[in-house]
Amino acid sequence: MAYIIRMNVITFTTDFGNGPYVAAMKGVILSINQAARMVDISHGVPPQDIVRGAYALYTTAPHFEDAVHVAVVDPGVGTDRRGIALECEGGVLVGPDNGLLMPVARRLGLRKAVHLVERRFWKDDVSSTFHGRDIFAPVAAHLTLGVPVEELGPEITDCNDMKLFHPTVSGDRIKGAVIHIDHFGNIISDIPKEMLEERVEAGRKVSVRIAGKTMTLRFFKSYGHASERELIATLSSSCLFEIARTKGSAEEAFGARPGDAIYLEFI
Amino acid sequence: MAYIIRMNVITFTTDFGNGPYVAAMKGVILSINQAARMVDISHGVPPQDIVRGAYALYTTAPHFEDAVHVAVVDPGVGTDRRGIALECEGGVLVGPDNGLLMPVARRLGLRKAVHLVERRFWKDDVSSTFHGRDIFAPVAAHLTLGVPVEELGPEITDCNDMKLFHPTVSGDRIKGAVIHIDHFGNIISDIPKEMLEERVEAGRKVSVRIAGKTMTLRFFKSYGHASERELIATLSSSCLFEIARTKGSAEEAFGARPGDAIYLEFI
Amino acid sequence: MAYIIRMNVITFTTDFGNGPYVAAMKGVILSINQAARMVDISHGVPPQDIVRGAYALYTTAPHFEDAVHVAVVDPGVGTDRRGIALECEGGVLVGPDNGLLMPVARRLGLRKAVHLVERRFWKDDVSSTFHGRDIFAPVAAHLTLGVPVEELGPEITDCNDMKLFHPTVSGDRIKGAVIHIDHFGNIISDIPKEMLEERVEAGRKVSVRIAGKTMTLRFFKSYGHASERELIATLSSSCLFEIARTKGSAEEAFGARPGDAIYLEFI
Repeated sequence: MAYIIRMNVITFTTDFGNGPYVAAMKGVILSINQAARMVDISHGVPPQDIVRGAYALYTTAPHFEDAVHVAVVDPGVGTDRRGIALECEGGVLVGPDNGLLMPVARRLGLRKAVHLVERRFWKDDVSSTFHGRDIFAPVAAHLTLGVPVEELGPEITDCNDMKLFHPTVSGDRIKGAVIHIDHFGNIISDIPKEMLEERVEAGRKVSVRIAGKTMTLRFFKSYGHASERELIATLSSSCLFEIARTKGSAEEAFGARPGDAIYLEFI
Repeated sequence: MAYIIRMNVITFTTDFGNGPYVAAMKGVILSINQAARMVDISHGVPPQDIVRGAYALYTTAPHFEDAVHVAVVDPGVGTDRRGIALECEGGVLVGPDNGLLMPVARRLGLRKAVHLVERRFWKDDVSSTFHGRDIFAPVAAHLTLGVPVEELGPEITDCNDMKLFHPTVSGDRIKGAVIHIDHFGNIISDIPKEMLEERVEAGRKVSVRIAGKTMTLRFFKSYGHASERELIATLSSSCLFEIARTKGSAEEAFGARPGDAIYLEFI
Repeated sequence: MAYIIRMNVITFTTDFGNGPYVAAMKGVILSINQAARMVDISHGVPPQDIVRGAYALYTTAPHFEDAVHVAVVDPGVGTDRRGIALECEGGVLVGPDNGLLMPVARRLGLRKAVHLVERRFWKDDVSSTFHGRDIFAPVAAHLTLGVPVEELGPEITDCNDMKLFHPTVSGDRIKGAVIHIDHFGNIISDIPKEMLEERVEAGRKVSVRIAGKTMTLRFFKSYGHASERELIATLSSSCLFEIARTKGSAEEAFGARPGDAIYLEFI
């Protein structure tokens, strides 16, 4: 039986910055479904950084129920890279077939992928540089009108994939990577809570090395328990190992950048 | 009689920056009340700057009628600081009990404060670092569904308070503080129109000292009346003493920062 | 017959930055029409830069159907500059009479201009520095409630105008200007596709001079066809001549700024 979106919610995740490009997508959507309800996840993905875009989607889309998530971090726009829609347990993902959508699709429960080829769900004119506006936005609008995913194009099973997290454990040592640095300068790793297990009790010390700097931090349940300006280890709100500094920036303390390796050693 | 929100409007004021953290809150809200209408007041509050957050709320929330205002500038998240909801004449405020909500609550007409303890209005899992998503957002959504404030927890009368404005007058001298610097570089003080009284007629001169610099400015009704690039004194759109520069930045001219003292002397 | 807006969509284009000023406008609107649907076009227009504001509107508003577009880039606020509403084929424009609205009005199909004087559609108190909140926002809200444009004030025919695009051709040389630099550092000119005609076939070379630097670029249909980090010529999503660099910034390569002259010579 065809899965049909029952809610009118469409989210956006792009590297466009806030501004007219995003609004053009929203105008196209409202022209097709004026009842669409639109929420920005992020437009601050660094230009063409598919990993950071995938991470924003991965952590945020699961908080929505039955929404259409449009994601556009799309260095290959206008080439023969495919546009896709992924039907999942908790919604539908729409965007380029470059790995951006797959990590969150697995988390939501991927059911079916289609290659977007049915032009009747697109804008009449399709530019070579802005498929977000001309293909993905109108497709999302039609999904919220009740068009089932299978009408958008033929099913495919060979979507380009990407592994977002790949930490490794060896005894008391864990190797991971900086997956994201947030607005507060908190350094968020790809090391999940489960991998830390019983190591993360309050006050426990962990040696952290990033970008050539090694520091020993105490583990706390939250920022407010630490001393002022203390660098601490904690769990992010997505249950990943995080380094934070109250009234300061962990990013600056380590000189860390997204993609840097993180080495943990529990003491 | 219980006060019940009749509109579906929820506003957000945070230090999260635009991006996924805000969207997670919105996803949680739409999952509870899909008719919620959400408006961002500001996510550009400087990290953990409760005074600047309180000022954004104070100047903006009164333009909404009967809305739920969620505010999260929350350095104490995860400690024993309380979460609160404040029922006011013109809406309900939801956030941490750290003073952030009190100045606007008094302006709106505070009627009742409750300590958020009823977990049935929260997310099932509550993280230690993101009560905005896990407690305040779902509480706001339930308020727009008609849950009265008193069901959220017991009434309290000892909320942490904060005085946003504390200017003093001594003869023709007024001492105040920089409460906000806006996107244009306009310097907004905590000195209200009423304190200036008859002193603010067009063309009147005022000597202004901030951050060690003293300048004599003319008072104008609006920017457009001044000469190009003239530093002027005026009234902000919230009726506070403001320093502006057409086609330029008053902030740069004075090297002013939020919190700096301002000394005025009328000539 | 009076033209009446049938949809509830209101867009915003300002130089306010994201933040409380925009939210105040939205609060005023929701207090008048709680069913209004609001979309931000851009709040990142450089302060008082009417040309950049007009360009954002020009490229984006046509993607909306039957909307009210509020635009506030308004260095003359509080002087005797007029507030206006422009009834067009595809919607209504509301803002200051300083040229900001005219380029998009012509594109949408201008039918009638009125001078905003009917105070019953404004806020009760009108500040001298924030007509966006006190006049334009409430006027927009009333338009979505079905108030026809002619009730807002008397018709006028002498609106201040502005020419957004003024490229010139001389043989194989075209002179234009940098109309916009986007978030990716793409340089967008005011030279339309039609002026390039048959010159823009893939692989064709063009000599480009901006800000004293001359470079020879290949023309491509989209970014993804170029070599990595190659500076290329292409067409923007609004069909204007554009210079882009994959995984890099054309803006940095040329040191270009909005308003700079662009000289093209086809080879």
